Amino acid sequence: MPRVVRIHHVAFAHGADASPHDRFAELLGLSVSHAEEVLGFVERMIPAGDCYLQTLEATGPGVVATFVGKRGNALHHVALEVDDLDGYVEDLRRRGVRLVDDRARPGGMGTMIAFVHPSVFDGLLVELVQVPGGSP
Amino acid sequence: MPRVVRIHHVAFAHGADASPHDRFAELLGLSVSHAEEVLGFVERMIPAGDCYLQTLEATGPGVVATFVGKRGNALHHVALEVDDLDGYVEDLRRRGVRLVDDRARPGGMGTMIAFVHPSVFDGLLVELVQVPGGSP
Repeated sequence: MPRVVRIHHVAFAHGADASPHDRFAELLGLSVSHAEEVLGFVERMIPAGDCYLQTLEATGPGVVATFVGKRGNALHHVALEVDDLDGYVEDLRRRGVRLVDDRARPGGMGTMIAFVHPSVFDGLLVELVQVPGGSP
Repeated sequence: MPRVVRIHHVAFAHGADASPHDRFAELLGLSVSHAEEVLGFVERMIPAGDCYLQTLEATGPGVVATFVGKRGNALHHVALEVDDLDGYVEDLRRRGVRLVDDRARPGGMGTMIAFVHPSVFDGLLVELVQVPGGSP
């Protein structure tokens, strides 16, 4: 069975009027190590130990804006690093588990990712991540 | 300045009709290492790497039931381990930062904890944690 290595990141979605990353820097001494613009949002990675806080800033129409419109600024998902993403996705499909992504697709920072449908974990949105070259 | 050591846990709140911890075990191979009953909820700790997933099951009236009543099952907060909680709380108070807990108080598993008011981080509820004897 594929293995969960660790929590890779926890994601907080927010509107363009907020900048929680500035408050993390100011009050917690944590700063953005990586940012990338995706369709409709900016994703920022903030290392804390060997995990990341991730912020998702809605900058246009898309999944993040829809989420923030419905929930307000809120925690969005938890990403778990696994050692064999293709194997995991295959295993879950074989067991009839509902996935958002039927196969692994590229994520931020060169990772491969797949989201499990939130109904599987009673409403918790879980992302599975494989890091290029494995965990540090 | 006190230092954030790592993400200690990320908490998911849910109603008594859900058991996400059973699905974590079944589908992710992650199991509960510790559970304790607090006023109005059961808190379960599920190790993943050197962090924890935490589930908060509302079992009676209280903060968790109120949250779930308003939001449904949803991610509740992120806990950051710090190396000097009293120093952190003192530092934040001195800077006029709004806290839920004006001083550190006992949390689960022998930790000391203090919550920062969610308005400080644009709606993100952050818990600061100090682990007895420091990080493993």
